[in-house]
Amino acid sequence: MDKLNLDQHISNKFNEELEEARQHLMQMGGMVEQQVKNSITAIIEADSALAQEIRAKDESVNDMEMDIDEECARILALRHPAASDLRFVLAVTKAVNDLERIGDEASKIAKQAIELTENGAAPKGYIEIRHIGNLVVSMLNKALDAFARSDAELALDVLQDDKVVNMEYASAMREMVTLMMEDPRMISRALNVMWALRSLERIGDHSQNICEYVIYLVKGKDIRHKKLSKVKKAVKK
Amino acid sequence: MDKLNLDQHISNKFNEELEEARQHLMQMGGMVEQQVKNSITAIIEADSALAQEIRAKDESVNDMEMDIDEECARILALRHPAASDLRFVLAVTKAVNDLERIGDEASKIAKQAIELTENGAAPKGYIEIRHIGNLVVSMLNKALDAFARSDAELALDVLQDDKVVNMEYASAMREMVTLMMEDPRMISRALNVMWALRSLERIGDHSQNICEYVIYLVKGKDIRHKKLSKVKKAVKK
Repeated sequence: MDKLNLDQHISNKFNEELEEARQHLMQMGGMVEQQVKNSITAIIEADSALAQEIRAKDESVNDMEMDIDEECARILALRHPAASDLRFVLAVTKAVNDLERIGDEASKIAKQAIELTENGAAPKGYIEIRHIGNLVVSMLNKALDAFARSDAELALDVLQDDKVVNMEYASAMREMVTLMMEDPRMISRALNVMWALRSLERIGDHSQNICEYVIYLVKGKDIRHKKLSKVKKAVKK
Repeated sequence: MDKLNLDQHISNKFNEELEEARQHLMQMGGMVEQQVKNSITAIIEADSALAQEIRAKDESVNDMEMDIDEECARILALRHPAASDLRFVLAVTKAVNDLERIGDEASKIAKQAIELTENGAAPKGYIEIRHIGNLVVSMLNKALDAFARSDAELALDVLQDDKVVNMEYASAMREMVTLMMEDPRMISRALNVMWALRSLERIGDHSQNICEYVIYLVKGKDIRHKKLSKVKKAVKK
């Protein structure tokens, strides 16, 4: 009986620890999502004060990554998780890495926002930034939701969204090149917009990575680098 | 006596498994390093056949990442590594991720090489690609060496190299912008060079990440996002 109680106790405590790790990941995710949203606002509204704020806050994002990583290492060292618990811990340490990189990209967009307020606005590209920005923010939001709810179907949805982002991105980039050719005085500013678009596209990629971990977590299958048709099969099974 | 032999056996087998993981990481590292070298050659010598080869080989790099990740998950599940063994396994799963992304960047450089052979060569930028390319290949090589030998001092060296790469990168990018402004017909080709330079810069960043894991592994300290002066202190202690 004592033994059983002890086991129960350990396992409750262990579950609490896993739940805490999930909550910390979600807190970090929420913060990163806000950073991305703010970076889009900063560039569209030429708000360099907001951009500075984003760059200052990136340090907190970095700290969160290190804290959660340490938390996961501690769980691995003390609890020896197995099966889906182990996959969960591994998925968390991978996901925080992608979140940290999304934070970096938000910070890079903020940098372009600052340069654009100094160089004078670009004549074009803001509609594309807003549009692609909305798409990737929604991808990130769904990716975090999918993680919170261990929802492989929702994760699959996000993988499908990325195709749209890539198409819109390619078309926006072509437009910026045309703009540069038509008016070489716009080259610097068009490049600012292009770098920001590039960062948004990367945020879409990182959101996709997070969804791949969700599928690994739920289905026990590593579907990275697999064709979408194969991923669909794995998720629907 | 039997118990002791069994423990010995388990621990030998465990050591073998860790050694194998290290070797697999090194094999992947060697392959990725060759991909980066080839991508630099492909762009400088306008060798689109070589570029195609790089893009085809990226799949093997991806497979290696997944295999090594699975290997690490198995070790965690069955061996419950602690202390420096646990740090080692975690460092390997992080390092393969960076290696895979370096592979992606090599593949992106190859894509620019293919476009440049179609668009006609860029008038400038090849010296910069060769120069920065050599710097980041040396960083990657040293990072892998540092991992193989658990050499924190060598890892610190690489962190210092990254400053040089960033300076050279910024200067090369400015030069390409000037080139575009002087001759707008060169815009597309200059952009190809810029994207390739950007990928090289990213390869330097990923090599730096690998070195941060080496320091974590050897010193037990997570020095990511820390100032170089603090990292130096941690390594020298």
